[in-house]
Amino acid sequence: MIYLDHNATTPLAPGVIAAMLPVMTGVWANSSSQHGPGQEAKRVLATARATVARVLGCKPVEVIFTSGATESNHLAVRGLLAGAAPGRQRVLFSRVEHSAHLRLAKALAAAGVEVDFFPVLPCGQLDLVAAKAMLGPDVALVSMMAANNETGVLMPVAEMADLAHAAGALLHLDATQFIGKLPFDFVHFGADAVSLSAHKFRGPKGVGALLLRQGAPLVPQSLGSQERGRRGGTENLPGIVGLAAALDLLGDLADEAARVAQLRDSLEAGLQNALPTTHVWCQSQARLPGTSYLRFGHLSVDVVLQRLERLHVAASSGAACSSGGSEPSHVLRAMGVPDDEALAAVRFSLGATTTPEDVAYVLRELPPLLAPLLQDELTLT
Amino acid sequence: MIYLDHNATTPLAPGVIAAMLPVMTGVWANSSSQHGPGQEAKRVLATARATVARVLGCKPVEVIFTSGATESNHLAVRGLLAGAAPGRQRVLFSRVEHSAHLRLAKALAAAGVEVDFFPVLPCGQLDLVAAKAMLGPDVALVSMMAANNETGVLMPVAEMADLAHAAGALLHLDATQFIGKLPFDFVHFGADAVSLSAHKFRGPKGVGALLLRQGAPLVPQSLGSQERGRRGGTENLPGIVGLAAALDLLGDLADEAARVAQLRDSLEAGLQNALPTTHVWCQSQARLPGTSYLRFGHLSVDVVLQRLERLHVAASSGAACSSGGSEPSHVLRAMGVPDDEALAAVRFSLGATTTPEDVAYVLRELPPLLAPLLQDELTLT
Repeated sequence: MIYLDHNATTPLAPGVIAAMLPVMTGVWANSSSQHGPGQEAKRVLATARATVARVLGCKPVEVIFTSGATESNHLAVRGLLAGAAPGRQRVLFSRVEHSAHLRLAKALAAAGVEVDFFPVLPCGQLDLVAAKAMLGPDVALVSMMAANNETGVLMPVAEMADLAHAAGALLHLDATQFIGKLPFDFVHFGADAVSLSAHKFRGPKGVGALLLRQGAPLVPQSLGSQERGRRGGTENLPGIVGLAAALDLLGDLADEAARVAQLRDSLEAGLQNALPTTHVWCQSQARLPGTSYLRFGHLSVDVVLQRLERLHVAASSGAACSSGGSEPSHVLRAMGVPDDEALAAVRFSLGATTTPEDVAYVLRELPPLLAPLLQDELTLT
Repeated sequence: MIYLDHNATTPLAPGVIAAMLPVMTGVWANSSSQHGPGQEAKRVLATARATVARVLGCKPVEVIFTSGATESNHLAVRGLLAGAAPGRQRVLFSRVEHSAHLRLAKALAAAGVEVDFFPVLPCGQLDLVAAKAMLGPDVALVSMMAANNETGVLMPVAEMADLAHAAGALLHLDATQFIGKLPFDFVHFGADAVSLSAHKFRGPKGVGALLLRQGAPLVPQSLGSQERGRRGGTENLPGIVGLAAALDLLGDLADEAARVAQLRDSLEAGLQNALPTTHVWCQSQARLPGTSYLRFGHLSVDVVLQRLERLHVAASSGAACSSGGSEPSHVLRAMGVPDDEALAAVRFSLGATTTPEDVAYVLRELPPLLAPLLQDELTLT
């Protein structure tokens, strides 16, 4: 199986498992317990927190461990909204947020919160001009992705942070797809809160974090004494240690990002060369290194994924979480892409386990399977 | 180290680790992905769900996997309250719920929800007469423990289910301490929603479930497509498999419960015999088999735990989550226990790893350390 779906999830790194196992077997006490084993668990927790802080450029106290990005996103939006001044109760999202995050936005709107969505340009970039116009003294929070999970487009985070802060609003960044793929620094990025999920960078599932700028007025949502009262529930220490180990193992991301981007670029170039009706969305934009979102003419994504499955290549039609559906991607719709093109969308996402041989295999095997179908399509139209 | 703090957490069973490891290394795909590896993960998830349903006597569709009991409790209370009729917006809790759950109750009250607390009797049992009197046509939900985490007292769940249902309200049961210690059956217990946490029965931390009666009107709180739209976030498959394996490994709980209860009873009898001022709370009540909540005269719990630490015995002053504090237990206060007695409370919680030798060791080593202190106490008063 050639796995080209790293944006959906990633295999646990062997070094992460090696870091988790001794905790699973030997440091299983409750880190809130006062006895010896509990205090040892507490020390291991503090070490993991310090590692996360060091790798991501924040303070240890700014790390809130959660069960993953969805919880982090909910905590950030609900918690910062609840902590905002009574006159600031409007929240802005982009139209291209993850579908789960848009569900949250709609639930807030249904509950009476004023929610607005700022558009993206046809190139997939956030429309900063429109966003700026929507920011007013009533906005508590802007919530947006650092990079889009489908197109891979890198969003103008620093610019949006400046705009939000100038308007007196906070910025929450969903960096679920970004962290682990490109270098990240909490201070440099300028967001007040940042969500991340370990399983996107070869860490375990079921654990993530919200980085929260010290002093940001968060009202906890899941209540309990843990995480300085900001997130209740017995700490998932093996998961937290796994998250920290996964971050620590990333090493020099710049080199790895260049390697993956080169593989992605050669995949795209090879496919476009072999199948000239291949269209890559956002190809000219700065993107996540491994993400390629494309269509082969108007060939239905189901047909393409079927052929890929036959070749034992795992790819996707977009977000895994909505890949069961047959609706066109809301991301492409927001970019103004017609439905018949959007329904042809295939996402390849390359990552740490991707090799030049994987790319060569796809370039050798896929075009001969698709070419006749594309020829039929041409004849039919 | 002799570990007598099984109510705080339990060591992972070797069989649980053995079940999780192949999932960590081999079934790491996203179970929402449509490709082969994703579908394999989906099958493993379905198998785990079926196991949980079989062991706990519910339908697979009634299992919602979460990150643990705190999330399950929040989801049940917030979700069922949001799903209740507009005229039913009052929630009843007992006064002896876990402190995290009482925090939730207070947060609801602060947000304008009508919240009431029903009392317990001096014996630690719920006051069903008082509870019945508080139930009215405005109550959406009763939320209570199946067994108290400090005293171990088993609560009258079936009776409360009947009372709640007769009043048209739902019953949420926090069975975090119960499940894994005594036989449980979802249908038989009669609750509409039941919270559980894997790490309390030798499963992994960071994973739990909410069992939800089919048809119960739950409004999801963490939004996403997973768990039939009832709980968002990429499924923590290794954790879920670990939870299922831990339940499956419990086997005939009746035998194990009898073994642990016998050890607990001999510990209590031995301590009471050696140190006659030993007082065990709720000793005459039906209790969790391994739980013993007691005081040695009025000896401060800190002094006792210090001696236990010296003996390499791990015990606690009550809930791990609040064991850093020096406040008297709210559970004992609700029972009417004076503060000077409550501040002497020590909780021993025995479990699957506890042996007769552990008990013999405590009975041999602890009384000689405490007797002189108790003698001083006697002389001073």
